[in-house]
Amino acid sequence: MAPGDTVEEAALADGVTKSTCVDLRQRVKDEKASHDLVLKTFRLLIADLCQQYNGGHPGGAIGMAAIGVALWKYVMRYAPHSPDFFNRDRFVLSNGHTCLFQYAFLHLTGYKAMTFEQLKSYHSDRYDALCPGHPEIEHEGIEVTTGPLGQGVANSVGLALATKHLGATYNRPGFEGLVSNHTWCMVGDACLQEGVALEAISLAGHFRLNNLTIIYDNNQITCDGTVDLTNTENVNEKMQACGWNVIDIEDGCFDVTGIVDALLAAKKADKPTFINVKTVIGVGSKAAGTADAHGAAFGAADVASMKRAYNFDPELHFVIGDEVRQFFAGIPARGEAYVEEWNSLVARYEQAYPELGAKFRDRVTGKLPPRWKELVPAPGTFPTAPTASRAASGLVLNPIAKELENFMVGTADLSPSVHMIWPGKVDFQHPDLKTGCGINGNYTGRYIHYGIREHAMCAIANGLAAYSPSTIIPVTSSFFMFYLYAAPAVRMGALQRLKVIHAATHDSIGLGEDGPTHQPIELATLYRAMPNILYIRPGDSEETAGAWIAAIEAEGMPAIVSTSRHKLPQLAQTKREGVLRGAYILQENEKAVLTLIGVGAELCQAVGVSDKLREQGIETRVVSFPSWRLFEIQPLEYKREVLRRSQIPAVVIEPYAATGWERYADAGISMKTFGHSLPGPAAYKYFGFDVDSLARKVTGYLQKLKQDELLKHEFVEL
Amino acid sequence: MAPGDTVEEAALADGVTKSTCVDLRQRVKDEKASHDLVLKTFRLLIADLCQQYNGGHPGGAIGMAAIGVALWKYVMRYAPHSPDFFNRDRFVLSNGHTCLFQYAFLHLTGYKAMTFEQLKSYHSDRYDALCPGHPEIEHEGIEVTTGPLGQGVANSVGLALATKHLGATYNRPGFEGLVSNHTWCMVGDACLQEGVALEAISLAGHFRLNNLTIIYDNNQITCDGTVDLTNTENVNEKMQACGWNVIDIEDGCFDVTGIVDALLAAKKADKPTFINVKTVIGVGSKAAGTADAHGAAFGAADVASMKRAYNFDPELHFVIGDEVRQFFAGIPARGEAYVEEWNSLVARYEQAYPELGAKFRDRVTGKLPPRWKELVPAPGTFPTAPTASRAASGLVLNPIAKELENFMVGTADLSPSVHMIWPGKVDFQHPDLKTGCGINGNYTGRYIHYGIREHAMCAIANGLAAYSPSTIIPVTSSFFMFYLYAAPAVRMGALQRLKVIHAATHDSIGLGEDGPTHQPIELATLYRAMPNILYIRPGDSEETAGAWIAAIEAEGMPAIVSTSRHKLPQLAQTKREGVLRGAYILQENEKAVLTLIGVGAELCQAVGVSDKLREQGIETRVVSFPSWRLFEIQPLEYKREVLRRSQIPAVVIEPYAATGWERYADAGISMKTFGHSLPGPAAYKYFGFDVDSLARKVTGYLQKLKQDELLKHEFVEL
Repeated sequence: MAPGDTVEEAALADGVTKSTCVDLRQRVKDEKASHDLVLKTFRLLIADLCQQYNGGHPGGAIGMAAIGVALWKYVMRYAPHSPDFFNRDRFVLSNGHTCLFQYAFLHLTGYKAMTFEQLKSYHSDRYDALCPGHPEIEHEGIEVTTGPLGQGVANSVGLALATKHLGATYNRPGFEGLVSNHTWCMVGDACLQEGVALEAISLAGHFRLNNLTIIYDNNQITCDGTVDLTNTENVNEKMQACGWNVIDIEDGCFDVTGIVDALLAAKKADKPTFINVKTVIGVGSKAAGTADAHGAAFGAADVASMKRAYNFDPELHFVIGDEVRQFFAGIPARGEAYVEEWNSLVARYEQAYPELGAKFRDRVTGKLPPRWKELVPAPGTFPTAPTASRAASGLVLNPIAKELENFMVGTADLSPSVHMIWPGKVDFQHPDLKTGCGINGNYTGRYIHYGIREHAMCAIANGLAAYSPSTIIPVTSSFFMFYLYAAPAVRMGALQRLKVIHAATHDSIGLGEDGPTHQPIELATLYRAMPNILYIRPGDSEETAGAWIAAIEAEGMPAIVSTSRHKLPQLAQTKREGVLRGAYILQENEKAVLTLIGVGAELCQAVGVSDKLREQGIETRVVSFPSWRLFEIQPLEYKREVLRRSQIPAVVIEPYAATGWERYADAGISMKTFGHSLPGPAAYKYFGFDVDSLARKVTGYLQKLKQDELLKHEFVEL
Repeated sequence: MAPGDTVEEAALADGVTKSTCVDLRQRVKDEKASHDLVLKTFRLLIADLCQQYNGGHPGGAIGMAAIGVALWKYVMRYAPHSPDFFNRDRFVLSNGHTCLFQYAFLHLTGYKAMTFEQLKSYHSDRYDALCPGHPEIEHEGIEVTTGPLGQGVANSVGLALATKHLGATYNRPGFEGLVSNHTWCMVGDACLQEGVALEAISLAGHFRLNNLTIIYDNNQITCDGTVDLTNTENVNEKMQACGWNVIDIEDGCFDVTGIVDALLAAKKADKPTFINVKTVIGVGSKAAGTADAHGAAFGAADVASMKRAYNFDPELHFVIGDEVRQFFAGIPARGEAYVEEWNSLVARYEQAYPELGAKFRDRVTGKLPPRWKELVPAPGTFPTAPTASRAASGLVLNPIAKELENFMVGTADLSPSVHMIWPGKVDFQHPDLKTGCGINGNYTGRYIHYGIREHAMCAIANGLAAYSPSTIIPVTSSFFMFYLYAAPAVRMGALQRLKVIHAATHDSIGLGEDGPTHQPIELATLYRAMPNILYIRPGDSEETAGAWIAAIEAEGMPAIVSTSRHKLPQLAQTKREGVLRGAYILQENEKAVLTLIGVGAELCQAVGVSDKLREQGIETRVVSFPSWRLFEIQPLEYKREVLRRSQIPAVVIEPYAATGWERYADAGISMKTFGHSLPGPAAYKYFGFDVDSLARKVTGYLQKLKQDELLKHEFVEL
């Protein structure tokens, strides 16, 4: 091992000791002679990789080369042969289009999956390529999927928050290195313009996450031209105003030493650090410093001329010489030493703190104590009085969240509305913070006030979940409508198969006075159509229990538990097992001429309509249908038994857009317009969702069916 | 008229002359004695209005009372009896939940619609109430609908940008008052945390919109408690770093004079101004300064005790004394004087500049010169070579945008990708800006670089559209997938019936290498389900012409023209008139056993499958289906004729979630997962959307139908 590769580093909590820094600095100095060749090799490799299939994003990766050397060769703590090493530093490429930057370093530093052949698959038509157009979490060495700009910044805040929380919870004197990793987030000019990043930056400053560093590839170029076309703010002052430490690097294309110094300084700061690194996009190419270098290959002539200028053979491609290979050769061994050192630390910890050690082990493996199910209120134990399903959500989740430390629950400033506070909850806050309202906390806290930052909340939650599977199970909460603000992050969670649960309240026009801006009409359709996410609308407390069980049990899939603001009656026939199957027969009736499908907050209306129609001599049956996704995976036989559509028609009642209900129903009582600001019951009445109006619509429909006015395949909105 | 009410004010461009300020200041001083009673009356009125139905948001409105007096009584230029006066100042309540603040001032200042009875309808079950839970654009005196936090900030940037642009375009020496209004945006602590606001703030600073003032109701309280639970940044420094002028007001609850001074200073600044007004939420109530004052009535006892403390009769409700009525009495007359002065200015302008005057008149009335349709390339004039529909979008829109000054086209940093640049386009920029890439502009420019700020782009576009109907028709552009980032703003546009057109490119898995983060699967479903928006996916250049015609013709409805990144063949049978009907028969075939529904970028695949099946002796017909919304409003007969579902089954081909296609098809070849990073053709093949795979799926489906394995009402995903 070279000087500076001291495994003691791994035992350090959040900083770097002075002597380690001196060692490391000396080493950077000793190896300075190699940097020029390494950088040239790296830059030509990127140019060749884009030239190969004449596409991709070369400029950013080339500009950032020196940053990569500083990170992967010198400062970052990771283990290429143990890519899931628990206490590894997390690296997030928020400017994901520069993915070649990361892929090339994964290859050079010895990640086994990233063979030379795989590296060269970038932009190929190889289906199993590890080099997609943006980094994907499924692949070795990638912490989160990025691409939609700004997300990575918020993910990084989540990753850094996870470290702070786990460290505060499990680290003990002499065991500061148990959970002590740093999070490095690479951003370009774009990420710093995106709202989701700006929200997350503000919160990270507030939480004083000094284990988080944003490295800004400040090349001042975006697709349209120079950044000053759209942005002339003073970014350093803005970051400082948000509570960040700021370091400038002037010669970011070549000054590896300066960058290493900055990265080390960042590890010692008492705030999150923003390193503003001035670079030149596509440096060395003819397109250098222009938007042309951003999203297209340079052209064969330009690449050849770069090679000549760098004293490389223009006829040869993908050249990585021995000296460069050698430069990165020791890294896997260094990584394994980190891992061994940490394993031995954990072993000593388990001896010193047997109980805590066992808990920590469970957290590391993501094991959820099976007793969580016993904490769910048993059927028949919920209050019998009408209860808002948002309140029922609290009745179900809070005992679980209280007991199971995996859960970190947060809200976008709607604590009084979302009912997610358990007795004795501690807030996640910097321990020195003294708030005006006297509600303080510390880093062991598991209740997160995200502020009015719905988008960042969900993207940060993705980071918490991505830290290590199920080590932390984040729960977010807000009004359902505001999950449209958060939708890009919710989608990224679904795409990455991250276990995040979103507790969405106020999910119906029944929320009342807040009006059409808050009443969701089309949003459930989005989440029902979105792949790999579980959207569930429970109809009463018992169904809410089922919804949470389904959400917690769902592996590799985020969930939305969507509940009402207003009180709902407890229905005698609801059952949690039914929710787990997506839909089930609430009231069977062999004489039924029609199936009424009830959903969520309006399930009780469906029951009311059935009762009303019975008074009129019309027999119906009622199906409760809280979740499409859960129903879709049921056996065909079950589905047919529940819906009975070959025998009788089905009408769905839901004050949402009907879109998609055509699969399960012949007619829908649904919404074609936005909502209206009225008290809840008046809003229902205004749109014809009171029981009387609903019953009239159903009888009208039956009448039309009798008169044979409708074609079987034509879905009708009533 | 009182001193300070000089109608000359209306003639001022952007500032306030020294003498006017002196007059106004003197007047504030003269009337100081009344302020105390006015503020007390206002605060009790708000408390009573919330107490009446025991709900609503009293605290903010009460805290902001003095700000309201400064604005409505002294500084703001508006005309209650001519609420649509073109050159009025725009007031936006971004913290929309404090709507009573605005409603009460609308009432006091004499807006005719806002009768006392109407004011008292807040939280009532009156269907035609003008006091919904958040301000709504449909009602007199409301500039934009707000509620979802942060939107109003971005809307205000759009409103201020509209003024700058129109002023630069039409004002002439001596006619600086033609378009010279100021935009005042009221925000709370929450708006300043939302990403959409932060994006817009950065851009407003860049554009140096000195006709925009944000007034920050800094009460440091949100639902969860004090703001320092989640936000401890230095907001003033952050705003300054973003290029804003900052003014502090310490005693924001009572210091009307100080606030007037600050508002006047804001009108004279050379940057946008941020007035940081320290207030106390719910001041005077027992809940003052706490989260309890935010979203619930104070309780009868507290309201009574406030009244006693203010020397009001606790038994009386909704008391507005004569002195207070008198205080606001002159405002409608002052407003009419503004209007008259402006009308006379316009008359003189039309004499001095007849041609420009006529143009200006058209802009004021929102008249779109009918010749725009002639600018659309005629059928058969598009290039016959395969053309990406994003390029076709440019071929259609750019000549229109070049000629018709109503159009302001912008992009979230994707100029090279979205093809929305016309020859000679001028950028909207501050004229003093000199960019690094040498692309400069001025305020007459109609091409807006929004930066990588999709959400703010669409919310700013809403502001541009809300300035005055069709005076400006904003076009935004980005990749379709990023309209998920912008979805909350797109929704607000739909809710407000604003004419904004979104040019969304890269709308298919065929976009290729950018991969699953960029490939939309479920997003079209959202916009197809969303009320009052036109989502259109054209299939080739001719259909793209139809899409733009539909979008431009749509009144009171935003539109999304959704196009491909990749080249599409020009199909012989496509026709723009078909697009205008939503769906149409592309290839009829009386012998058909099946209808193939093709959509957008994959319409050509449907045609290919039909050809392929014909070779196999299977006759099919092809329907092109670019828009659900346009199809839904067609006569039933037309719909049946197009789909022929009572005769033969229909299969839709679209690599999106099938959700909702069940209404029009019996089976779908669709996507159940997210996409994959592969070159476009390889991505199609990977998911079975190449013609061979598609044809196999269709024949398999026909086989199953023959074997009677399927139930008629069961939609099948192939």
